[in-house]
Amino acid sequence: MLPFGRVAIIGMGLIGSSLARAVRAAMPTVRLTVSDGDALVRERVRALDLADDVTDHAGAAVVDAELVILAVPVGAMAPVAAEIAADLAPGAIVSDVGSVKARVLADLVAALPGVAVIPGHPVAGTEKSGPDAGFASLFADRWCILTPPADADPAQVTQLAAFWSALGARVETMDAAHHDRVLAVTSHLPHLIAYSIVGTASDLEAVTRSEVIKYSAGGFRDFTRIAASDPIMWRDVFLHNREAVLELLGRFTEDLVALQRAIRWGEGETLEALFTRTRAIRRSIIEMGQDDARPDFGRSHEG
Amino acid sequence: MLPFGRVAIIGMGLIGSSLARAVRAAMPTVRLTVSDGDALVRERVRALDLADDVTDHAGAAVVDAELVILAVPVGAMAPVAAEIAADLAPGAIVSDVGSVKARVLADLVAALPGVAVIPGHPVAGTEKSGPDAGFASLFADRWCILTPPADADPAQVTQLAAFWSALGARVETMDAAHHDRVLAVTSHLPHLIAYSIVGTASDLEAVTRSEVIKYSAGGFRDFTRIAASDPIMWRDVFLHNREAVLELLGRFTEDLVALQRAIRWGEGETLEALFTRTRAIRRSIIEMGQDDARPDFGRSHEG
Repeated sequence: MLPFGRVAIIGMGLIGSSLARAVRAAMPTVRLTVSDGDALVRERVRALDLADDVTDHAGAAVVDAELVILAVPVGAMAPVAAEIAADLAPGAIVSDVGSVKARVLADLVAALPGVAVIPGHPVAGTEKSGPDAGFASLFADRWCILTPPADADPAQVTQLAAFWSALGARVETMDAAHHDRVLAVTSHLPHLIAYSIVGTASDLEAVTRSEVIKYSAGGFRDFTRIAASDPIMWRDVFLHNREAVLELLGRFTEDLVALQRAIRWGEGETLEALFTRTRAIRRSIIEMGQDDARPDFGRSHEG
Repeated sequence: MLPFGRVAIIGMGLIGSSLARAVRAAMPTVRLTVSDGDALVRERVRALDLADDVTDHAGAAVVDAELVILAVPVGAMAPVAAEIAADLAPGAIVSDVGSVKARVLADLVAALPGVAVIPGHPVAGTEKSGPDAGFASLFADRWCILTPPADADPAQVTQLAAFWSALGARVETMDAAHHDRVLAVTSHLPHLIAYSIVGTASDLEAVTRSEVIKYSAGGFRDFTRIAASDPIMWRDVFLHNREAVLELLGRFTEDLVALQRAIRWGEGETLEALFTRTRAIRRSIIEMGQDDARPDFGRSHEG
């Protein structure tokens, strides 16, 4: 028995289009309607045959959907919710895939009074964007976090969890504010740092940009992958999870300054102690199946 | 015609053992003698059949070598050089693979008066350590930077360059001090930041360590790979390239604080402008063949 028979996805970027492919693969009988405001994106979605119907207005996509998933940048959630409010079918569940949850929950509840809003966040992605970059297995063995409001119907939360499980994801439920603190650590700060270091490296005088590119295999290239992520999506994440990001950034800077001091004063034991401790975390991530166990992420080493 | 007929490698970790494998694969007739101070490492090297001879003392390995490559942490270069000084054959070239060059050049020249010292640095590696982690194709299409002193014999520099080219590397020559500034950007700062953020993330109160591990696919896991690199090697890098690392760290912190301010004041355009600019660098790195073009480094996405 399928959790939902009719699903609508608004936004056909990397995540929305991966979701469409995953639904097609795991639940081929689901009636899938998708929407995107960009004509070029819709054209690609039709060419790739990712859905039964492709609409230009979000409202048209949701009219008979039992589940509506908003897959747009978090800053676009409120306007898109307003766009679909009048067209939602009675009893429809509205969810999303945004990286920030407290603000999105508040925005959706405000825009959709009386509607069952259950925000979600599949912790998965790549540095690529757009409908061609998506793939069906993106959510396999990744976590999807649901952040239902306190008054959510437990049966509906279970139904949404079953939907994500059917796509191969592992589902966890938590409070939206806690989600935002957790993701500030595991996702938002890493992205901010990566964007920042790539910016710093490209603005130096003593080292040219072509040298930075040429010798990037020393570690820098790992950061450039993250720093190639979608600019609008990430701008919105930082603007909408401001408090948690700023608080964590304070901690990070404090720790970095302590390392800086250890280097200046030649305190080798301090450095070695930290560098030894951090190895254990990597091992745990691999044991938990959250990264590729092969060296160097399994990068191709054939010349 | 082989650049060298008899080669010695001191230190059989990831880089030394990869070098041994690469020499075996590309120049099977070379007489290869290797040495490591650790009995367990020597046992593995023998079991893996990585060399013609395996010695416990570095001096014994170099007696008739035309090329000696030191593949030990940069802090161990001076003592190892002192250990081999009396045993070097006349005319032997001594090189290394360390990530820091000015200090290593000075240490080797001081320990080996009258010897042809031509430091080198293959910009390649993985987060793994030890002889079992090495592989023959590690240097394929990666850069190897040679930093000969001003009075080096150009013919010997060419000979060493030919050796690395035969292993599949692309060779570049530059001044040791410039190397250290370039690598501070492309390798040392990225490692320091990665170690630091992994340390920060494991010391929080509001977010547990198991949550950090569980949701690491949001970006954090990329940093943990780098932060799993060899602690002794990296301790030595920071202690021996102190000035360049501290200077760059100052620039990085300045840029990060500017981003922090943009987030605090909701300056979306500043964020978007940086995030758009950093995408171009990633493209160049892939065009230059310095990273895997597949999304997410080619990580396996099968659940």
